[in-house]
Amino acid sequence: MVPRYSRPAMTAIWSSENRYKIWWAIEVFAAEAMGKIGMIPADDAATIRNAYDADVLGEIDVPAIDAIEAVTKHDVIAFLTWAGEKLGPERRWLHQGMTSSDVLDTSLAVQLKQSADLLLDDLDALLDVLKRRAIEHKMTATIGRSHGIHAEPVTFGLKLAQAYAEFDRCRTRLVAARDDIATCAISGAVGTFANIDPAIEAHVAAELGLSPEPTSTQVIPRDRHAMFFATLGVIASSIERLAVEIRHLQRTEVLEAEEYFSPGQKGSSAMPHKRNPVLTENLTGLARVVRSAVVPAMENVALWHERDISHSSVERFIGPDACITLDFALARLTSVVDKLLVYPDRMQRNMDRMGGLIHSQRVLLALTQAGLSREDSYALVQRNAMRVWESDGQLQLLDLLKADPEVTSRLSNDELEGLFDLGYHLKRIDTIFARVFGDSA
Amino acid sequence: MVPRYSRPAMTAIWSSENRYKIWWAIEVFAAEAMGKIGMIPADDAATIRNAYDADVLGEIDVPAIDAIEAVTKHDVIAFLTWAGEKLGPERRWLHQGMTSSDVLDTSLAVQLKQSADLLLDDLDALLDVLKRRAIEHKMTATIGRSHGIHAEPVTFGLKLAQAYAEFDRCRTRLVAARDDIATCAISGAVGTFANIDPAIEAHVAAELGLSPEPTSTQVIPRDRHAMFFATLGVIASSIERLAVEIRHLQRTEVLEAEEYFSPGQKGSSAMPHKRNPVLTENLTGLARVVRSAVVPAMENVALWHERDISHSSVERFIGPDACITLDFALARLTSVVDKLLVYPDRMQRNMDRMGGLIHSQRVLLALTQAGLSREDSYALVQRNAMRVWESDGQLQLLDLLKADPEVTSRLSNDELEGLFDLGYHLKRIDTIFARVFGDSA
Amino acid sequence: MVPRYSRPAMTAIWSSENRYKIWWAIEVFAAEAMGKIGMIPADDAATIRNAYDADVLGEIDVPAIDAIEAVTKHDVIAFLTWAGEKLGPERRWLHQGMTSSDVLDTSLAVQLKQSADLLLDDLDALLDVLKRRAIEHKMTATIGRSHGIHAEPVTFGLKLAQAYAEFDRCRTRLVAARDDIATCAISGAVGTFANIDPAIEAHVAAELGLSPEPTSTQVIPRDRHAMFFATLGVIASSIERLAVEIRHLQRTEVLEAEEYFSPGQKGSSAMPHKRNPVLTENLTGLARVVRSAVVPAMENVALWHERDISHSSVERFIGPDACITLDFALARLTSVVDKLLVYPDRMQRNMDRMGGLIHSQRVLLALTQAGLSREDSYALVQRNAMRVWESDGQLQLLDLLKADPEVTSRLSNDELEGLFDLGYHLKRIDTIFARVFGDSA
Amino acid sequence: MVPRYSRPAMTAIWSSENRYKIWWAIEVFAAEAMGKIGMIPADDAATIRNAYDADVLGEIDVPAIDAIEAVTKHDVIAFLTWAGEKLGPERRWLHQGMTSSDVLDTSLAVQLKQSADLLLDDLDALLDVLKRRAIEHKMTATIGRSHGIHAEPVTFGLKLAQAYAEFDRCRTRLVAARDDIATCAISGAVGTFANIDPAIEAHVAAELGLSPEPTSTQVIPRDRHAMFFATLGVIASSIERLAVEIRHLQRTEVLEAEEYFSPGQKGSSAMPHKRNPVLTENLTGLARVVRSAVVPAMENVALWHERDISHSSVERFIGPDACITLDFALARLTSVVDKLLVYPDRMQRNMDRMGGLIHSQRVLLALTQAGLSREDSYALVQRNAMRVWESDGQLQLLDLLKADPEVTSRLSNDELEGLFDLGYHLKRIDTIFARVFGDSA
Repeated sequence: MVPRYSRPAMTAIWSSENRYKIWWAIEVFAAEAMGKIGMIPADDAATIRNAYDADVLGEIDVPAIDAIEAVTKHDVIAFLTWAGEKLGPERRWLHQGMTSSDVLDTSLAVQLKQSADLLLDDLDALLDVLKRRAIEHKMTATIGRSHGIHAEPVTFGLKLAQAYAEFDRCRTRLVAARDDIATCAISGAVGTFANIDPAIEAHVAAELGLSPEPTSTQVIPRDRHAMFFATLGVIASSIERLAVEIRHLQRTEVLEAEEYFSPGQKGSSAMPHKRNPVLTENLTGLARVVRSAVVPAMENVALWHERDISHSSVERFIGPDACITLDFALARLTSVVDKLLVYPDRMQRNMDRMGGLIHSQRVLLALTQAGLSREDSYALVQRNAMRVWESDGQLQLLDLLKADPEVTSRLSNDELEGLFDLGYHLKRIDTIFARVFGDSA
Repeated sequence: MVPRYSRPAMTAIWSSENRYKIWWAIEVFAAEAMGKIGMIPADDAATIRNAYDADVLGEIDVPAIDAIEAVTKHDVIAFLTWAGEKLGPERRWLHQGMTSSDVLDTSLAVQLKQSADLLLDDLDALLDVLKRRAIEHKMTATIGRSHGIHAEPVTFGLKLAQAYAEFDRCRTRLVAARDDIATCAISGAVGTFANIDPAIEAHVAAELGLSPEPTSTQVIPRDRHAMFFATLGVIASSIERLAVEIRHLQRTEVLEAEEYFSPGQKGSSAMPHKRNPVLTENLTGLARVVRSAVVPAMENVALWHERDISHSSVERFIGPDACITLDFALARLTSVVDKLLVYPDRMQRNMDRMGGLIHSQRVLLALTQAGLSREDSYALVQRNAMRVWESDGQLQLLDLLKADPEVTSRLSNDELEGLFDLGYHLKRIDTIFARVFGDSA
Repeated sequence: MVPRYSRPAMTAIWSSENRYKIWWAIEVFAAEAMGKIGMIPADDAATIRNAYDADVLGEIDVPAIDAIEAVTKHDVIAFLTWAGEKLGPERRWLHQGMTSSDVLDTSLAVQLKQSADLLLDDLDALLDVLKRRAIEHKMTATIGRSHGIHAEPVTFGLKLAQAYAEFDRCRTRLVAARDDIATCAISGAVGTFANIDPAIEAHVAAELGLSPEPTSTQVIPRDRHAMFFATLGVIASSIERLAVEIRHLQRTEVLEAEEYFSPGQKGSSAMPHKRNPVLTENLTGLARVVRSAVVPAMENVALWHERDISHSSVERFIGPDACITLDFALARLTSVVDKLLVYPDRMQRNMDRMGGLIHSQRVLLALTQAGLSREDSYALVQRNAMRVWESDGQLQLLDLLKADPEVTSRLSNDELEGLFDLGYHLKRIDTIFARVFGDSA
Repeated sequence: MVPRYSRPAMTAIWSSENRYKIWWAIEVFAAEAMGKIGMIPADDAATIRNAYDADVLGEIDVPAIDAIEAVTKHDVIAFLTWAGEKLGPERRWLHQGMTSSDVLDTSLAVQLKQSADLLLDDLDALLDVLKRRAIEHKMTATIGRSHGIHAEPVTFGLKLAQAYAEFDRCRTRLVAARDDIATCAISGAVGTFANIDPAIEAHVAAELGLSPEPTSTQVIPRDRHAMFFATLGVIASSIERLAVEIRHLQRTEVLEAEEYFSPGQKGSSAMPHKRNPVLTENLTGLARVVRSAVVPAMENVALWHERDISHSSVERFIGPDACITLDFALARLTSVVDKLLVYPDRMQRNMDRMGGLIHSQRVLLALTQAGLSREDSYALVQRNAMRVWESDGQLQLLDLLKADPEVTSRLSNDELEGLFDLGYHLKRIDTIFARVFGDSA
């Protein structure tokens, strides 16, 4: 976790305090269930639950727990020792028949679920902003580019609608990944429930909003986690896509959009054009960081037999790093889109810089439909188009065509002008918006 | 694609013949739709469709198409030229208003969907075998191991049930990934439908069993593909897990299971024990291969603007490689599990080699429940356990306990023997099986 | 291996024919050495060597060998059976005391060394072209861009010199990786030379131009291969860098350079500007492909004990794929750079489009040196610069400064003009070229 | 960085304090050089250098610098502001003509070089321990295993010698990677030295023990960093290999070696065999973590034009994480090897558990050499070997052979016993050790 790329709410999820609180909940809910089935005295179980509801732990004293762990060399025991002091003799029933992994893996599941919920909120915020700005620029014409080369017109809103659709898919995937990861395992040393009734697991799962893990070994199987981090990697890649788009649009020669800067803000020097797309560049890098969690998470799946502990160190890194970084990145991207400076005039000017060549295909088609052979049509268009191209935008294709008798003998000026109509390209933007946003667009 | 790691059905999906057949279907269905909306003459459209239904193309002549492509330098045009020769003048209506990517991306979607369907069949076959063998060995006791060290008993069937549950999750994920990838885009040069009615796309999609892509640029967005290959990577990781389990079980010192060899088959030498788990070792490697597609697929997402072509070369590798290799690996794993030689006697012997130490925890608990302090109980068990341990399996813990007056003053012989009951550990196997297999187990 | 991304010489290295030829050489050289130390009859050893020198094998009959393998299920035995038929009874001495891995791993080392040699040739060709074009455009001024935003002038030759320096480093790294991988292991079943004298290994190594592996297990340790493929991954990343640079330069709005197209060549349509940087986009994708070999190669290192066979399937993919693809990519990049269309006029025009703002920092400094405070200097420059910026390149900073009395009271027209001198920025290009190219530039 | 997987010396390299100290050194050395060439007054330069030598900064006040950065939004300016307060008016000469990247990239080079030096020390310590224990167990016979299956005898020392050779190669690679990364760039905004004499760079480089970067853009090219992190990834993979070896040896059924535990130490429960190889399992996971830096470092290479800032966030993670984690892992591995409990008796017992089958190949060969056909020899050995195999180690092959008249008619008892001589397999251990360790072994 790098502090400058983190936000408080997600960082809190991955704090020691939160982890201990989740452990406490697991132990308490387990004890409560043990009381219900008579594994431990019902009164003591109730006392424990009441203590939980009364928040007897209060603030978690992490240094105190750390100090105990330094002696016991066991994190769960250290916590139970500290927490037990807040209880009476009923403390002895805590953790009966359970194994550390029951607590650790279920706790990780809760943290990942909490993280997923926060990331879903982030996605919702991003989707809101994308939708608002897509609608704002629904008909803001701009050139579509394939291979970085001008192709045909689109709208800036359409670009944002495409991003909306992409992040909406990411949302769906994350919901699935969250459900995949949100399981509870309290099944004992090798997952056989030899020393613990499955009813305990069922109760804890219900209290925590998790599903019972159908069959665990000692641990929750790591294919779930692999899928989770792979999904984060896909989301990060989508972030990269939009970030790269914005970086392209802000290039000096393009300058169709810019990351926000306040009116009075100075550029980095005397050169007022030196406004760098540092936020989206940063997002490009953060996407690489989030993605780097994917392969290790997959390598974690093949634990030996009922478990080894090799995954643990990996997860201490990628758990917080991937979640915290992705949360930060989504929020940053939302802010960038929210405040993005969009320059429709410049979009128009860039589109025009080819002197109307972007319409040459329609002219070609019209000449063919007017009865000229395709070869002759091509030659006609090409000879005019080449002049426009060589003038570097000084000449206009429409002007040349109007002055070319071989053209005008087939197409009237009105017809020619109609072929240069932007509306032709944008006539189905409404349809596409309806497909992306439904009735709400 | 490496021939030795490929199977015919999946290889056929990625053949040139299949790709051309899909292109043909796309062009024909598009023409049919154009006829319906009056974009081209309805009769000609019907002629094209009839030709398709009559299979006028017959065998695809790949070398002939290649020869045309060598001249035209354009794969779609080369194909259309070749295919057009099988039609009459109605051929001119093919590909009207479409762009190459409409064909290429939709075709890739079909190939990936076909691949997913085949992989789902593979998974079903694997699940069947896992279930059969899990039930067969439902109560075959074996030692559970954490950290590679004996822990407490499980059953061999439970191991397989856990694999079943894992691959069942993989199945669910693959269904989602298939639906994610199975979209059809026929939207023109920059995705605006400027030259083509969305109704064309809707018809082609319906005919091919795809969903219309809500909004494409020129291409189907690559986050879909990234998710697909990421999912294959997770499945590969699960294959690795089971393969590693079997490799461990076949180690000389463990030898609880072996990849199949026929009764008359010679080992690799005069040494009859030299039966190597080469199939599961191979699967371990193939998992790495499938996984290697994940990161490039994610790097493919951030195409520039409406598209660049950098993803194409990547997909020419990872498309066939990941699908063909995973298909092969799933089938190989299914065969390995199907024919796996399982040695329950050896499992029992390995479990016993600790002289009953695996039951020491229960004894400890029983002594505590019989009124001894936890510390004294621990000391009692520990002093007997250490003797067993130092005897390297020659002494039995139960014997020593029965001969220890401090133990026998608390626990009768019957009680002690009861503590060494395997059934204690296996009593909830039924429950777990019901959770994994439902009523069918 | 994807045929369209392969070249014959590298493909031949990875052909079955070449692999069998290397096996043959290993077996023959081993027999020769065995003859020398009296392990087999010297006459027979000489006969074998003579047969090798006389090329008795001739064309390798791969289908025949495959047919034998289909029966023996063992590739090395199949080959030896086929090859033995070309010999007399001395054939029985072949492969004495050797293990298959001795042949397979040494053979792979030869293939990788041959590949490295070819890749080094590729790098040399690329370096030649980069140097030639760097010198050609040594003083072709162009704008340097940080964050995609105009910064200060550089030269196009400098960009190529930087690429030269980068690929020269890649060359050095590849030489090291080649030496790392080029070892010979003929050490028997577990690497102890129990059945084979180390002198055999020494002789084979010497004949093949390899170093003896100081200590093998059964296999050559895979850290060597990991380093090799990691090095290819770095080279691929450098290819990506230069490819992305060219893609940027070819963007419609920038258009300072273009991939070659012949004078008569038509663009993809009536639009003459539609020349897409498809080669460098392709290189961007191929870089991802080569890089995808790195992680699996690293995962191959941790073979179990003296070896397992999990690495083998991985290497059947990444060996040919990474080498063939990188060879192709280097050659393609060399061709792109060789024939790159460079537009110095456009570079100048782009540089000028900011109306001279790229010189504003020098003006600021000069005003400060002329006695004005930094704050006042900044204000003076900024107010003129903002007018230029807002004019979108219609106004020139130099003109405005010459018309600003507060400026002209400190700096004469001559002084001002001197501050707009490109030469100031390019005065050390010679020095840098000498650092990169030495005396030869 | 995860505190539990970090050590103080490496963590200090990546602390803010160290980074600021390096910045200070760069600025001071640059000023000193500027004084020498008359770019700034020589006296002021000398004053700055003297202040540096007198350590006027003292303890770095990170919070104070952070507070300034919160205002200036610029880290280098914030530091210079803080540091400048420790100087007199000569402070104004600091950073003249330099750009932030000059400081940042050169500083990163120093940190990476310092890290490499520490890692080289770590490797030396590991090599020392490996050598000592290799020599200690040079002739400790143990079974060699291919595919996890018993093959032929090796020695435990040989295993460690192989690890030594591997880490010695890693050392060589790291020296190369260190030299690759250890360059100094002080070349201004786009690397043209327009505002700064190359002599400044030369002086700073010499003072810091770096090489001048032959040609930078604004930044030091990232192929250097990619190579560095790739090399760390290879080292991590070698750590994984030895860690996995030890985990295998500690398995309950094998138990030929164990991670150290003190004589009085309790296992995790009443079961004295429950000593888990948690350190080497942890190393397996940490290898995955270090390796995860490789791909992002390669993705960082293709910065746009003269630089973008996307690499920066990546390096804030992988710089400290990879170096700190690898340092920790090397130290942990050194400690594990140093104190590894080795059980030669158990190695012998495991080797013997096959009843001598590991010698069957030698018997086969001897029978052949005694004149029997290979087929008959095989049949003879095989029928005895099968009985041994089926007895699960109760019968000894030597006994059976001595009792088989068809065998004894060809081989005397003495001859047979000689074939079961371990020394045959170990006779070249000396030779191998000399190859690995030279004269020092």
